Amino acid sequence: MNQLDDLLPIGLEDALPERSAIITRAMREILRAMDSHGYDRVRPPLIEFERSLAGRMEGVATRRMVRFTDPESLRTLALRADMTVQVGRIAATGLADAARPLRLCYAGDVALLKADQLDPARQRLQLGAELIGSDNVAAAIEAVTVALDALEAAGVTGLSVDFTLPDLVDTLADKALPLDANRREAVRRELDMKDAGALKAAGGADYLPLLYATGPFDEAIEKLAALDAGGALATRIAGLRKIASALGHRVRLTLDPSERHGFEYQSWFGFTLHAQGARAALGRGGTYAIKGSEEAATGFSLYMEPLLETLGTGSEKSRKTAFLPLGHDRDAAALLRSEGWRTVAAIDDQDGASSLGCSHILKDGTPVEL
Amino acid sequence: MNQLDDLLPIGLEDALPERSAIITRAMREILRAMDSHGYDRVRPPLIEFERSLAGRMEGVATRRMVRFTDPESLRTLALRADMTVQVGRIAATGLADAARPLRLCYAGDVALLKADQLDPARQRLQLGAELIGSDNVAAAIEAVTVALDALEAAGVTGLSVDFTLPDLVDTLADKALPLDANRREAVRRELDMKDAGALKAAGGADYLPLLYATGPFDEAIEKLAALDAGGALATRIAGLRKIASALGHRVRLTLDPSERHGFEYQSWFGFTLHAQGARAALGRGGTYAIKGSEEAATGFSLYMEPLLETLGTGSEKSRKTAFLPLGHDRDAAALLRSEGWRTVAAIDDQDGASSLGCSHILKDGTPVEL
Repeated sequence: MNQLDDLLPIGLEDALPERSAIITRAMREILRAMDSHGYDRVRPPLIEFERSLAGRMEGVATRRMVRFTDPESLRTLALRADMTVQVGRIAATGLADAARPLRLCYAGDVALLKADQLDPARQRLQLGAELIGSDNVAAAIEAVTVALDALEAAGVTGLSVDFTLPDLVDTLADKALPLDANRREAVRRELDMKDAGALKAAGGADYLPLLYATGPFDEAIEKLAALDAGGALATRIAGLRKIASALGHRVRLTLDPSERHGFEYQSWFGFTLHAQGARAALGRGGTYAIKGSEEAATGFSLYMEPLLETLGTGSEKSRKTAFLPLGHDRDAAALLRSEGWRTVAAIDDQDGASSLGCSHILKDGTPVEL
Repeated sequence: MNQLDDLLPIGLEDALPERSAIITRAMREILRAMDSHGYDRVRPPLIEFERSLAGRMEGVATRRMVRFTDPESLRTLALRADMTVQVGRIAATGLADAARPLRLCYAGDVALLKADQLDPARQRLQLGAELIGSDNVAAAIEAVTVALDALEAAGVTGLSVDFTLPDLVDTLADKALPLDANRREAVRRELDMKDAGALKAAGGADYLPLLYATGPFDEAIEKLAALDAGGALATRIAGLRKIASALGHRVRLTLDPSERHGFEYQSWFGFTLHAQGARAALGRGGTYAIKGSEEAATGFSLYMEPLLETLGTGSEKSRKTAFLPLGHDRDAAALLRSEGWRTVAAIDDQDGASSLGCSHILKDGTPVEL
């Protein structure tokens, strides 16, 4: 074996003990918060038929997935790149007959063959919750609430939430600000890019004011309402105001109604979670229809890596650890472990308590501080 | 999307809420037990260079692994089929300078492209602990102890441990019962198959008595010692007796010195964990040398699926769950959750407490039993 084989491929890495402990604890707290809101965890497999994953997913291009041929079925299999689509499949199949709304949560690794241009990672730990059977305002409030509770339980501070209206252009183009079907995609794109010149050039001059209905929620929603002369957005604006009034007391809220990146498959409501100290968003969510079954759903996904940036290191408490010399009292050691101690046993007479990171040593059945 | 796409490939399955909850709890208890013995969790990636995984692994043939070409490096990548080799790589690279003995543990999914003939599963949840830097008797006692503590913490009862001597034939063939190098593999295989006729035909007549030194540990070790006239096995027999004397009080012990299946890369000591109610072994372990670095190590791996067979269902406690009607007191609900309650909120006025599995309903800020 040469040294090259000891390296990991670009975008894949080990979490060594310190980082691994932070991940494990954050993940448990997030799962505990989702569980406390009634979300049952499901565990879909790492691998599925490519068509099942791709058919339900719009966010990730098939060519970016890890794909290979199944020697059993001779069909193409793929490694999951997103767990939301798997939860949608479970809701539509194994849990088709379960009572609605159905609350499911998940946590697991997802992988890509080719990384994003902005993010070299090819494996991410995705966690999330999906409320299946509803996409109303109460469901939206619940999704944002559970996401915030989960992040706070993990220790994240300085949270803010940015709201968006993913189907904004379609809603306006049908009624208030008519737009040919062939111009819609360009208008959506230039609004998302916030490029006023290109927006005009694409025939979206009427949409220019939307670029300025952004910022702190209370002001931005007033600007958006002022633009909405025909009332095409009335129910959406009322919905956003209700969501904001349920959540505004706990976090800073902003509105960016034409933001679309990452919300390609959401319906009327989308949100992005940010925190001080994290360059990337911690997660996003919103309302959508499950592809295939077309059932309404509302949910969110979090990613562990940006979350870890906000937690930093040093958040692990030092733990009482007792060194067990050769020939130690095994019952006394077992008793310590049952009381929450960590024990580290000598394996030969060279082993030392302090080099192995112990705070105590077991003497005559009792831990003595080093 | 057609119905075929809703199915999962053979050997891959979802864990729905009930099974998923049992898996999560068993996994946490196993990790907690390993942690209490001083084992730090590491999280290696799902994917590595094929050569890195295959070069360190003898148990799984490369052709049974999921492999694909990395568009970045143009080298072959593979999905991990075993995490022990990843922990060995970490010990030899990222943690090469950490104090020895180094205690690491892990839990994660591993996958195969082609299933075993006896087991259709192509994905398994593997958990384990490795003590790196020693393969002595104390390390062996620790490995079996931690494995038993982990399984008992997960709720497994009726445990037994079967010991083996993986390098038995090589040890005897070098000294006491000379055997040409070209006959050794056949003798090993026929001993493993317990085929007396084939063993004789393969030139291993001298090894026949080993087939009968099996069974309950105390009797079997006497038979083995009686066979060991030249003393070639003396240190191994003394080691086994020490291990047995440290563990015999807590579980039933057996010896099958020529068992080799699953121990192809172990050195002097191997063990298999069994439990009442599980058709397959719950795990195995032993002493070995890390491929590449050749550092001595001792450890074990457990698999979740046979473990679940012994736990069965119905082991989940029913949990206090409060239904939150529309317009409920959000602070009262948050307080309940902080006290360990699970809450399930109404999303529209059709939602009912009992159809959503609630035991209580929140009225005037207080949970009332249904």
